[in-house]
Amino acid sequence: MKVALIQNKHFGNKKKSVKNTVCDIRTASVQGAELIILQELHQSEYFCQSEDPKFFLYAESWEEDIRYWSKIAKENSVVLVTSLFEKRTAGLYHNTAVVFEKDGTVAGKYRKMHIPDDPGFYEKFYFTPGDLGFEPIQTSLGKLGVLICWDQWYPEAARLMTLKGADMLIYPTAIGWFDEDSKKEKKRQLESWITIQRSHAIANGLPVLSCNRVGFEKDASAVMDGIHFWGNSFVCDSQGEMLAQAGEEKSILYAEIDKQRVKEVRDMWPFLRDRRIDAYADLEKRYCD
Amino acid sequence: MKVALIQNKHFGNKKKSVKNTVCDIRTASVQGAELIILQELHQSEYFCQSEDPKFFLYAESWEEDIRYWSKIAKENSVVLVTSLFEKRTAGLYHNTAVVFEKDGTVAGKYRKMHIPDDPGFYEKFYFTPGDLGFEPIQTSLGKLGVLICWDQWYPEAARLMTLKGADMLIYPTAIGWFDEDSKKEKKRQLESWITIQRSHAIANGLPVLSCNRVGFEKDASAVMDGIHFWGNSFVCDSQGEMLAQAGEEKSILYAEIDKQRVKEVRDMWPFLRDRRIDAYADLEKRYCD
Repeated sequence: MKVALIQNKHFGNKKKSVKNTVCDIRTASVQGAELIILQELHQSEYFCQSEDPKFFLYAESWEEDIRYWSKIAKENSVVLVTSLFEKRTAGLYHNTAVVFEKDGTVAGKYRKMHIPDDPGFYEKFYFTPGDLGFEPIQTSLGKLGVLICWDQWYPEAARLMTLKGADMLIYPTAIGWFDEDSKKEKKRQLESWITIQRSHAIANGLPVLSCNRVGFEKDASAVMDGIHFWGNSFVCDSQGEMLAQAGEEKSILYAEIDKQRVKEVRDMWPFLRDRRIDAYADLEKRYCD
Repeated sequence: MKVALIQNKHFGNKKKSVKNTVCDIRTASVQGAELIILQELHQSEYFCQSEDPKFFLYAESWEEDIRYWSKIAKENSVVLVTSLFEKRTAGLYHNTAVVFEKDGTVAGKYRKMHIPDDPGFYEKFYFTPGDLGFEPIQTSLGKLGVLICWDQWYPEAARLMTLKGADMLIYPTAIGWFDEDSKKEKKRQLESWITIQRSHAIANGLPVLSCNRVGFEKDASAVMDGIHFWGNSFVCDSQGEMLAQAGEEKSILYAEIDKQRVKEVRDMWPFLRDRRIDAYADLEKRYCD
């Protein structure tokens, strides 16, 4: 199965960004990709760099956005993983991945469960933590374990998707560097980000597809300079081996997913067999003090 | 704090192997190491390549072994992490790490919780799964999150040690290649092994110290050729950055652990803050079917 990750930059406004993304979806579809992954909040800039209620306006188009991407999935006959700003009611919003089937129907959605809140990433202001749990989304291409960005640092999230039968793990994401950090610190951060996600592939015997954005985006509040999104979208197989990796430029990243390989790797490295579920109760505690 | 990992080979019998290990402990102690880690089952060959009750004889010296390594820890005034074959009673054995304080007292022990059983690694025949849980061991150098080999593939084990206040994660291990595997497969296995352990550092904001054995050891049953233990013992910091890494030869690997760095990294990457403990109950299930 051929997949495509569309690693894009923000083009200044929604219309231009969406147009550019749609153009890439068409290209990827023509190239034979059946599953297409978009980056986190691909319709807009990463607006969480500051806390400003004006950005809730972006979520007003939630239902219209779903109709729009449904049409795109159908037109291109692809399973499409989008990342949208969900308005549930006034004062209640989510960071939500909506997955569309090849015929344009909604296969399912995932509301980001782990929400960060750190300088430049003020997501707790915007997004209510998800309440749909860690449920893979059934599609014609298999059960997709869709998680979002900050979730990628949590082995628990990947494990739960695996225990619920996910065929692969998918992370739309938006992560980058602050220019004031040292070159060494930037390298450490990028390596950490790749390593933790590859480890989910290894621990669970599942392919991982991670789609990040690129480009520099200014902090709208001018408190900080802005974020330089580091790209490096990648696909690794169920043993953690890199199948494809993008650089720091806008690109469409293709990879072939071999679903038979999951069984081979899992049978050879049967980690699920030996989990000590009798001794894991404290995982549900905040801290054991 | 200076640590030393003694990556050794088996010298054909217990007497020679122990003598060699003690010599390395003295060297490391003279070099200023305060914490010394030995590889898994360092007193003998890795006898789990076949299932043979004769090897239970190795556990008969369990109490004597404790007295011996206690003396070595005291003589060198180091905190010493050993890996021994515990006889609890006839027909009931464990793969147990015993940690000694600088004065030779037993600081605590950890019984390997996750037990593998795969061609060449028939541990379920020898070792009853641990029943002491995931409890870090308090020493004068901090709380040591000691786990053993197969545990290293389980994010749950590392997380539980973290939630219980571990200051670092320590893995005595014995893992290697079969010569019949391809070069590419060997590379994948080694990379997986390094990646999963670095990921525990990243997910938990803790240094990881992993001590493996080296050398080729024949399968005593002659069913398979044997195992080529791949060494590559390493120490990484709480962001997953490699501080020191050994090759495939016998060696003493030194590293400096900066305990202040744990706080810095954890405060900057506060993953423990955002865990969705309300949604982790299914981690205690074997599979959600």
